Amino acid sequence: MHRVGVIGGGQLARMIHPAAIALGIELKVFAEQEHSSAHQAATKIGDYTDYRQLQEFAKTVDVVTFDHEHVPVALLEQLEAEGLKVYPGPKSLIFAQNKALMRRRLAELGLPLPAWQTASDAAAIEAFIAIHGPEIIVKTPVGGYDGKGVRVVSDSQQVSDWLDQIEKLGGELLLEEKVPFVRELAQLVARNPSGDLATYEVVQTVQKNGVCAEVIAPAPKPVDSIAARIIAEEIAVGLNVVGMMAVELFETADGHLVINELAMRPHNSGHYSIEGAATSQFEQHLRAVLDLPLGSTELLAPAAVMVNLLGVDDRNTFTEHYNKAMRVDAALKFHSYEKSARGGRKMGHITALGDHPAELLKKAHSAAAAIYNQI
Amino acid sequence: MHRVGVIGGGQLARMIHPAAIALGIELKVFAEQEHSSAHQAATKIGDYTDYRQLQEFAKTVDVVTFDHEHVPVALLEQLEAEGLKVYPGPKSLIFAQNKALMRRRLAELGLPLPAWQTASDAAAIEAFIAIHGPEIIVKTPVGGYDGKGVRVVSDSQQVSDWLDQIEKLGGELLLEEKVPFVRELAQLVARNPSGDLATYEVVQTVQKNGVCAEVIAPAPKPVDSIAARIIAEEIAVGLNVVGMMAVELFETADGHLVINELAMRPHNSGHYSIEGAATSQFEQHLRAVLDLPLGSTELLAPAAVMVNLLGVDDRNTFTEHYNKAMRVDAALKFHSYEKSARGGRKMGHITALGDHPAELLKKAHSAAAAIYNQI
Repeated sequence: MHRVGVIGGGQLARMIHPAAIALGIELKVFAEQEHSSAHQAATKIGDYTDYRQLQEFAKTVDVVTFDHEHVPVALLEQLEAEGLKVYPGPKSLIFAQNKALMRRRLAELGLPLPAWQTASDAAAIEAFIAIHGPEIIVKTPVGGYDGKGVRVVSDSQQVSDWLDQIEKLGGELLLEEKVPFVRELAQLVARNPSGDLATYEVVQTVQKNGVCAEVIAPAPKPVDSIAARIIAEEIAVGLNVVGMMAVELFETADGHLVINELAMRPHNSGHYSIEGAATSQFEQHLRAVLDLPLGSTELLAPAAVMVNLLGVDDRNTFTEHYNKAMRVDAALKFHSYEKSARGGRKMGHITALGDHPAELLKKAHSAAAAIYNQI
Repeated sequence: MHRVGVIGGGQLARMIHPAAIALGIELKVFAEQEHSSAHQAATKIGDYTDYRQLQEFAKTVDVVTFDHEHVPVALLEQLEAEGLKVYPGPKSLIFAQNKALMRRRLAELGLPLPAWQTASDAAAIEAFIAIHGPEIIVKTPVGGYDGKGVRVVSDSQQVSDWLDQIEKLGGELLLEEKVPFVRELAQLVARNPSGDLATYEVVQTVQKNGVCAEVIAPAPKPVDSIAARIIAEEIAVGLNVVGMMAVELFETADGHLVINELAMRPHNSGHYSIEGAATSQFEQHLRAVLDLPLGSTELLAPAAVMVNLLGVDDRNTFTEHYNKAMRVDAALKFHSYEKSARGGRKMGHITALGDHPAELLKKAHSAAAAIYNQI
């Protein structure tokens, strides 16, 4: 029996659960609260920043992995020092936790990045704006997700609150040029401790207000899928990543790819793989952290699209509208994360497989409208 | 929130669980014992022949359904009389529980059956052998599964033990001609209370020692798939079935189909649908009993094969051999039912999708050999 412990009880842990049931892998989830999305697999509820709780949890499984990237690496280093397995390990995870460290390391690896620099005062920001402006991107190196901790800035005054608490934010801000991209892509890759790699088809992602709204797999041509693959594999090897990793990429007008963000876990851009690929990213993550052979990443249809279901208000929990939504198309796949309703929250997603992305998106959005109770 | 209660904690309940997680349907399982295959979804452990326990369980869900067909229909009728929903209902389920009643009802519906008759003494059996012999099939109408309660008989002496306890067996035995079939098929269909039907591709099944060993979807041509579909749909409508139903069929040398057995639940012949069809039989069963629109039954590949993993001894729990087995082919899908090891027990299965059934079977059997620790 293989035992995997996941820290964090969000929808990623939730979606690992069916893969664990199929394979007969014992899944334990360390959730933050009683009513987590992954509550059905939760074996412990507590505080993952408390080393004693982490340690107690880690000792009940063969390997610890993550639903999110927020566990302090110092605690993970302690676990490793005790001989407990943590994948991805703290020496890898630090680059997903700290965007400034990530930029430095990827620059060392010679990978394509936006122009970037760290800054800790207004003058440095103004200088960067003078070169790369009129608008630049400023990020807090730690703690951001889904658009939080990221601002488009044309004046250092716009981040004066961050500068005021710069020590709390790690002592520096990350400045990046605002890449003139034509679209966003994501490249998923899995790596196991033996060093095997399994790379998925590059996908196109569509963000709305900093949140993933749609994914199209594979990314419509033309796309430099070879470059995307090489970038992701070089990062996975260079950062010694174990498990699933997503590389978010900008595609520029001339077709070049530039690295935006990294995630060292299953990722929203890979939800299509549950039905759309021979091995879902969730099964793949389990295989990878257990050092099992990795599964095929082949697509099971010419195209797969995923549409996120974002909360519309505090009442609509979506599943009550299945009757109407499922009538839109009998082949649509519905996923609920069983979260309490809240405007803007990632509540679930819909996946469609078929031949033509445009048709699939139309169906998925029709079903989403029914779920939102708008038709 | 939709709440479904499953009576029985076997592998079918286990495989309903991932579908419930995906859809955000609350699944409750009434298991017979602590360490059931579906233990992760078990909310009650007890005796399903105790009405009070059944009733208590049924009141916590919107609809009760089944992992097996052993719940006494009298108890289900009581639940219905209290206004609790049970699908399939007792008036349908009785035909899956009692093979003699099933033969009578299907004969009334004018469906193709082997020559059959009920008998309660040796003389009637001898007379049936004289007409349909030298060998006939004798079945106990109730309680048989996986080849138990079925004998090939050329002399009534061979069932003298059953005749001695005929009252305990329901007062009669079912006699059937031994159909000279060339292969066995299975036809899956789902029906919801609104009367919608969703019919899967007819599949070929290969039995070994009365236990399903392999399934090939779709059944290799030539096959009278229209007849298979009509038979299954007429039974589903005629018996007012709600949920998944499997019709096991014999195909004779001239291509005719004859009904062997019925199962009113997800069925071993449909396990391929987890990865191989747009809607798995487990998701379909949930949709059906909740009276949601039924999902597409389309195959996601030209062919899907499933190979059952039967226990080889009391030690090999299979998952310890994943490393070797997964190397056989990266696209194979492994399923463990997390049962304690025992020779001959259904412990799991392997599914392969692709173009050519013969190649897929070869891969699946190679992986099975690795799982059995024979290579």
